[in-house]
Amino acid sequence: MKTMSFVLHGDLCDSRDPQHLRTIRDGFLVCEEGVCAGAFPVLPEQYAHLPLLNCAGRLIIPGLTDLHVHAPQYTYRALGMDLELLEWLKVNTFPEEARYADPDYARRAYGLFVEDLKRSATTRAVIFATVHRESTELLMDLLDRSGLAAFVGKVNMDRDCPDGLREDTASSIAETKWWLAETVGKYDRVFPILTPRFIPTCTDGLLAALGELAAETGVPVQSHLSENQGEVELVRSLCPDAAFYGDAYDRFGLFGSHGSCVMAHCVHSTQAELERMKERGVFVAHCPQSNVNIASGAAPARRYLDEGLNMGLGTDVAGGFSLSILRAMADAVQCSKLRWRLQDQALKPLTAAEAFWLGTAGGGAFFGKVGRFLPGYDFDAVVLDDRRLAAARPFTLEERLERAIYLSDERDIEKKFVMGTELF
Amino acid sequence: MKTMSFVLHGDLCDSRDPQHLRTIRDGFLVCEEGVCAGAFPVLPEQYAHLPLLNCAGRLIIPGLTDLHVHAPQYTYRALGMDLELLEWLKVNTFPEEARYADPDYARRAYGLFVEDLKRSATTRAVIFATVHRESTELLMDLLDRSGLAAFVGKVNMDRDCPDGLREDTASSIAETKWWLAETVGKYDRVFPILTPRFIPTCTDGLLAALGELAAETGVPVQSHLSENQGEVELVRSLCPDAAFYGDAYDRFGLFGSHGSCVMAHCVHSTQAELERMKERGVFVAHCPQSNVNIASGAAPARRYLDEGLNMGLGTDVAGGFSLSILRAMADAVQCSKLRWRLQDQALKPLTAAEAFWLGTAGGGAFFGKVGRFLPGYDFDAVVLDDRRLAAARPFTLEERLERAIYLSDERDIEKKFVMGTELF
Repeated sequence: MKTMSFVLHGDLCDSRDPQHLRTIRDGFLVCEEGVCAGAFPVLPEQYAHLPLLNCAGRLIIPGLTDLHVHAPQYTYRALGMDLELLEWLKVNTFPEEARYADPDYARRAYGLFVEDLKRSATTRAVIFATVHRESTELLMDLLDRSGLAAFVGKVNMDRDCPDGLREDTASSIAETKWWLAETVGKYDRVFPILTPRFIPTCTDGLLAALGELAAETGVPVQSHLSENQGEVELVRSLCPDAAFYGDAYDRFGLFGSHGSCVMAHCVHSTQAELERMKERGVFVAHCPQSNVNIASGAAPARRYLDEGLNMGLGTDVAGGFSLSILRAMADAVQCSKLRWRLQDQALKPLTAAEAFWLGTAGGGAFFGKVGRFLPGYDFDAVVLDDRRLAAARPFTLEERLERAIYLSDERDIEKKFVMGTELF
Repeated sequence: MKTMSFVLHGDLCDSRDPQHLRTIRDGFLVCEEGVCAGAFPVLPEQYAHLPLLNCAGRLIIPGLTDLHVHAPQYTYRALGMDLELLEWLKVNTFPEEARYADPDYARRAYGLFVEDLKRSATTRAVIFATVHRESTELLMDLLDRSGLAAFVGKVNMDRDCPDGLREDTASSIAETKWWLAETVGKYDRVFPILTPRFIPTCTDGLLAALGELAAETGVPVQSHLSENQGEVELVRSLCPDAAFYGDAYDRFGLFGSHGSCVMAHCVHSTQAELERMKERGVFVAHCPQSNVNIASGAAPARRYLDEGLNMGLGTDVAGGFSLSILRAMADAVQCSKLRWRLQDQALKPLTAAEAFWLGTAGGGAFFGKVGRFLPGYDFDAVVLDDRRLAAARPFTLEERLERAIYLSDERDIEKKFVMGTELF
C-alpha cells in the first residue's frame, strides 16, 4: 500500500448537507497524497498530469464509517436474538468474549472479521475488542495490515460479569496503561480508544482511573448509553447521584470533556442527557438494527439530526447481524418510519439522503475531515459497480444511490480507498 | 426439466409445527416422481436403488413461498419510498405499470424479474401482473419456462387510477374471461388468479362480475386488505354498507367463499374481519418489509399465528425492495419485536422458527401440500451452501438455519427443486 496522487473518474455522489446529495455524473475526484483535492465535473488543468483511474459508469461514494461494532461478537452474529440486552449479554456475549483469552482463537476469529470488514464498504470503524490486552493488540495489528482506519478499545469491566472476564480494578488499569504504552503512536491508521464497557460493569474506582487516563493522554472514549429500559433503570439504581445515565460517565471525565467521545445507542436519552452531549460534542452511534434485534426500541434519530448532535451509524455487531453500513442506512430509514407510525408522529422519518449523510459525513467526523469529497478531506472512497442491480429502464444518479443503499452488498464493491491507498 | 425419483443427502431442516423445527443432520430426503416420500436419518431399504444426490454438509430446506409480489414493480424496487400507500401508488406505481401496455417492455422487465426469482430461494409465488392481458400471459409463459410454480393475476381496475390504466368495466370483464380461457389448464405449474387490485380502484359492478367468475370457475382470488389507515378510511367511505373492509369483498363472493383466497397485509384488520377470514379460510400474506417501507404499520402476526389463521409471507415488491423470503423471515421477526416494544407488549415477538414456518409451510399451504418434508408433499427443496458464513466455531443445525435466515442470499443457493425437477 502506497499513498498516491491520482484522479478517479466515474459517477460521484456525496452529501452537500444532511438533507441534500451532491451528484456529478462522469466526474473527476482528485487525490493528492491521500487527501481529496475536490470533485469536479471537468478535470481542472492543474491535475491533468495525474494518472487517471477510469471507473466510468461506476458509482463512487465516500468511504463509510461504522461508529460502533464489537469485533469479538462477529462470530455469533445472527444467533440467539430472542433476548433483551441484559440477558443477551449473559447468555450470548460473555461466554463468547471469554474465548478471546486465547490468542489463537482471537487470531482466527478476528481474521475473519477484518477480512469481511475489508471487503465491505466500510473504510473506518470504532471497535470494541474484549478485556484481553494481547488479543486486542492482535486485532489492531490485523486492522493495520488491512489498510482500514480504526479506533480499537480494550474493554474495561470489573464487576457484574463472569469470573473469566471480570478484571480486578487495579489490573484493569495496569493492563490499560500497558496497552496504551504499546499502541499509542504505533500505527498510521489504528488508534486506541478508552472503553469502559458500560456503567453496570464498571466500578466508580475504575471509571475514575480511566477518566484520569483520558485527561492525561487525550485518548478518546467510547461506551454504551441509554440503550435499553432495564439497563437505564439499573444505572439509576447503581448511580443514585448521577443526574442521568450520561452524567454517570461525565462525573469521571468520560463524556467528552477531555477529548472525542462516542456513545452507542441513545434510544432512551432524556433531554438533559442530550443537552450535555451537545455541550460536550459527544457523538451518537445510532445502531437501528441492533435496537430492533434486541428489542431496545427506536432511537429518535430525527430529533438528534434536527438538534445538530454529532451522529453517525453503527452496526453494533452482534446486536446487529450485518456488518454493512449501507444496510444500516436502510435500517435507519425503516426504523424511523416504524417509530413515526407507532410511537411519535412529531418526528418525521429519515430520508435516504439523511441516512447516507449519517453513514458518510456524520460518522466520518469522528475521525476528522472524513466522509465527504471536499478539498482537505481524507481521500476515502468506495467504487460500486451497480450493474448487478440493472433494471428495464435507466435511473438517475440519485436513484442509483438509493438503490445501492437498499440492494447492494460487498459483491458490488470494485475498489476501495482509505487515505488514498487502494485496499484491493 | 424432467420429474425424477432420487434421494437428496444433506442436513435437512423443516418445521415440525409453527413453533418447532425438525432437523436431521446427514439425512436423506426422498423424491418419488416429484412427490416427497419422507425425510430419514437412515435411508430406508426400499429407496436404496434410487440415484443419490450427495449434498453432504449443505443445508436443505423446503422451497419458500412468496404469497404476495408485484412483478411489474420489480423494476423500481428500492426507489422513492418516502411516501405512504395512496400517494405512492400515484407517484411510483401507476406510471410504471402503464409501461406494460408494451409487450416488448414487459418481456424485458419480466425477464429480469423471473430470472432473479428463479435464482432466489423462492419456489412458489402468488403474483400481481398489470391490467394488460397480453403482458400477463407473457409473464406466465416466462414463469412456466423457469420451472417455478405460481399463481398470476391480470389486475382488474376500473376507477380512481390514471387513464392509461383504467379499464371500463365491460372490457375489464371481457379481457379477464379471454385471459382465463387462454390460461386455465395451459401450464403445469402456473395458474391464473382473479385479481381485483383493491376496493378503491374497483366499482361494485366489476367486483360483482369477478365474483360470478370466481363462482363459475373456482379460480382463486387475491387482493389487498386493511394495509394503511388512510386506505381503510377511504374504503369505509366508499362502501358505507360493508361491515368492514373485507366484507366489501365478501359481499361479492371474493373472500374465500368460492375457492382459495389470499389477502395481502391485514395490518389494521378488526376482530370481525379476522373472524370472517377464519370462517372462510382466507390466507394472510404478511408483508413486514413493505409495511415498514411505506409506513403502513406492523401487522399483529403473533395474533394471527396464535389464532390459527392461514398465513404466509410476502415480499410485496415494490413496497418491499427485496425479493427474498429469507429476508422476509428476518423482517417478520424484527417487525414483531419493534411492534412489541412500541405498540403492544401483549403480543410476543415472533421467533426465527415461527418466521421459517410462515415462509415454508404457512405460505406453501396456499398451493396444497407444500412447504414441508412430509410424505405426500410436493418435492420443493432448496440446497443452501452456508460455508460463506463460516465462523471461528462450529454451529448446530438450528443455529445454521437461523444464520442462513439473517445472512444468506441467492449466492448461497446451490440447487433448487420444484415438484422434483431441478431448476439449475
